[in-house]
Amino acid sequence: MMIVPATPSAATPLAEAAIVGVDWGTTQRRVVALDARGEVLRELGDDQGMLAASGRFAASLAAVLRSIGPLAANAPVVLSGMVGSAQGWHDVPYLDCSVSLHDLGARLFRVPDAPDAVDCSIVPGYRWQGVDGAVDVMRGEETQLFGAIALGARDGWFVLPGTHSKWVRLRDGRIERFATYMTGELFALLSRYGTLASVLRDAVDDDAAFARGLRAAARGALSNSLFGCRAKVVTGALAAASARDYLSGVLIGSEWHDALARRAGDGVPLRVIGTASLARRYARAGAVLGFDVITMDARAVQLAALSALQTSIGLRSVNRL
Amino acid sequence: MMIVPATPSAATPLAEAAIVGVDWGTTQRRVVALDARGEVLRELGDDQGMLAASGRFAASLAAVLRSIGPLAANAPVVLSGMVGSAQGWHDVPYLDCSVSLHDLGARLFRVPDAPDAVDCSIVPGYRWQGVDGAVDVMRGEETQLFGAIALGARDGWFVLPGTHSKWVRLRDGRIERFATYMTGELFALLSRYGTLASVLRDAVDDDAAFARGLRAAARGALSNSLFGCRAKVVTGALAAASARDYLSGVLIGSEWHDALARRAGDGVPLRVIGTASLARRYARAGAVLGFDVITMDARAVQLAALSALQTSIGLRSVNRL
Repeated sequence: MMIVPATPSAATPLAEAAIVGVDWGTTQRRVVALDARGEVLRELGDDQGMLAASGRFAASLAAVLRSIGPLAANAPVVLSGMVGSAQGWHDVPYLDCSVSLHDLGARLFRVPDAPDAVDCSIVPGYRWQGVDGAVDVMRGEETQLFGAIALGARDGWFVLPGTHSKWVRLRDGRIERFATYMTGELFALLSRYGTLASVLRDAVDDDAAFARGLRAAARGALSNSLFGCRAKVVTGALAAASARDYLSGVLIGSEWHDALARRAGDGVPLRVIGTASLARRYARAGAVLGFDVITMDARAVQLAALSALQTSIGLRSVNRL
Repeated sequence: MMIVPATPSAATPLAEAAIVGVDWGTTQRRVVALDARGEVLRELGDDQGMLAASGRFAASLAAVLRSIGPLAANAPVVLSGMVGSAQGWHDVPYLDCSVSLHDLGARLFRVPDAPDAVDCSIVPGYRWQGVDGAVDVMRGEETQLFGAIALGARDGWFVLPGTHSKWVRLRDGRIERFATYMTGELFALLSRYGTLASVLRDAVDDDAAFARGLRAAARGALSNSLFGCRAKVVTGALAAASARDYLSGVLIGSEWHDALARRAGDGVPLRVIGTASLARRYARAGAVLGFDVITMDARAVQLAALSALQTSIGLRSVNRL
């Protein structure tokens, strides 16, 4: 287990955590411990994602809790992400989009087989169903949206870029609709396998190529624009070293053009919740396509979510008295 | 070298071939020998594609010519496909679409380093350039289109499905425009790697799922429809065993909707040149989407191309006298 060392050093007596959040994805896991005021006590990341921990989730959680340091008595441990899927620890039913994100703290799934009598819950994901038979799902992003709401952003479009990019329309904290794009996954597949992989090596940063890719994506089907990347390199219309940023533009542009078409006339703010580099890339896409983008740091949003969950779990405990 | 045995048996004296055609792709190679009347004498296929034969094309050709049996003196050997690319034997310049396919036989590239003084040529591919910076290329498909013309089909839309599906608009034997879709390649990548791969195993044939995928592709970006396949399976809206045909529908549908949008108001015939199973699949897509499709067998078209090239090379030789 590769662990980013927790801070501060274990040589000093460690303060007890009031809540621990685990963002438990398919391949990665991020753990953060907050004190009673919502300040970060300790933080670590490892590669014990859902796939690696499969079949031994309780033991895996117990080990990471030992690493993160002491918990206060009854301190809640809140898990989010793919750990709550059919391939995860427990298959937690999706919430319907009629359930407001404001109520998320009251809809946590209590884990019955948590280690050492830890008060452990899983945040449920959401399912969206379109009138035309379209279906979409999220697990993990609902926690980030909950954090964004805690930071005061409860209306507009929220983009959560990544392996499976989400575009989510919130209205007063309720999910009105959302759509997922396999942007990051396709980029990874095409970079490693198939016809484009060889031209994507030895890339240089090229903002102009990214912008060209963004615009090319508007002209038609993605499977055509992807071949166009190859055709441009083969005919000398695009330098091979610029193909990587061009492809990134085509894939992200395809997502933007589709989402903007669905967003027609909806002049609400557009926020991107992401790591610094991804948020920057999406803000640049917005600038090229003529849209102002508000960026929100993914870690700050995740911490805000955990603080807000802490409050709502605390309230729930009070209500139980 | 895996060889499909040439017919008839080598025990009988073999008639000399008047022309040999080699469809020399990236990973596969098909060789056919015709007599002076254009009848098939012998035929074989192996896995000595461009990649396997790289760096020793002359020796590889000499070996396969020995396998295919005796050639008449001065019998032309005509190569088509990726063997004429930058990674192939010779980087044969693309023809501009202003060059009619009728003139293809006069534009062959003479191979300077052919083995045993064989009269060997490579058919050049085509490049298309759109007004909006779009670029597309083909190598190999021009030979099939040449064959279709020889069979009397010189106008309308021609679909050549496969790893890189082509939609080509011909007007009196001239290529007006064409577009390539990475349909087959994406299907192969998604079937082997990534999120969808696990749900695509253990598939059953499901025409209804194929039709659903075709229609779903009209609703938005491909990267969204691909995730939709997963979301449908996860939520029970689609049986996992039907996901493979659904994905096939999404990918082929994406190509159709894009091509049909470019084809608006152009009520010319739509022909598919493909193997039996692919042609059937595209004809079914046409039926679902409301278009009549004329199917042409890829092998018959290839043989017609070779016969026609034989005639045009013969004429060229006569003209040289």
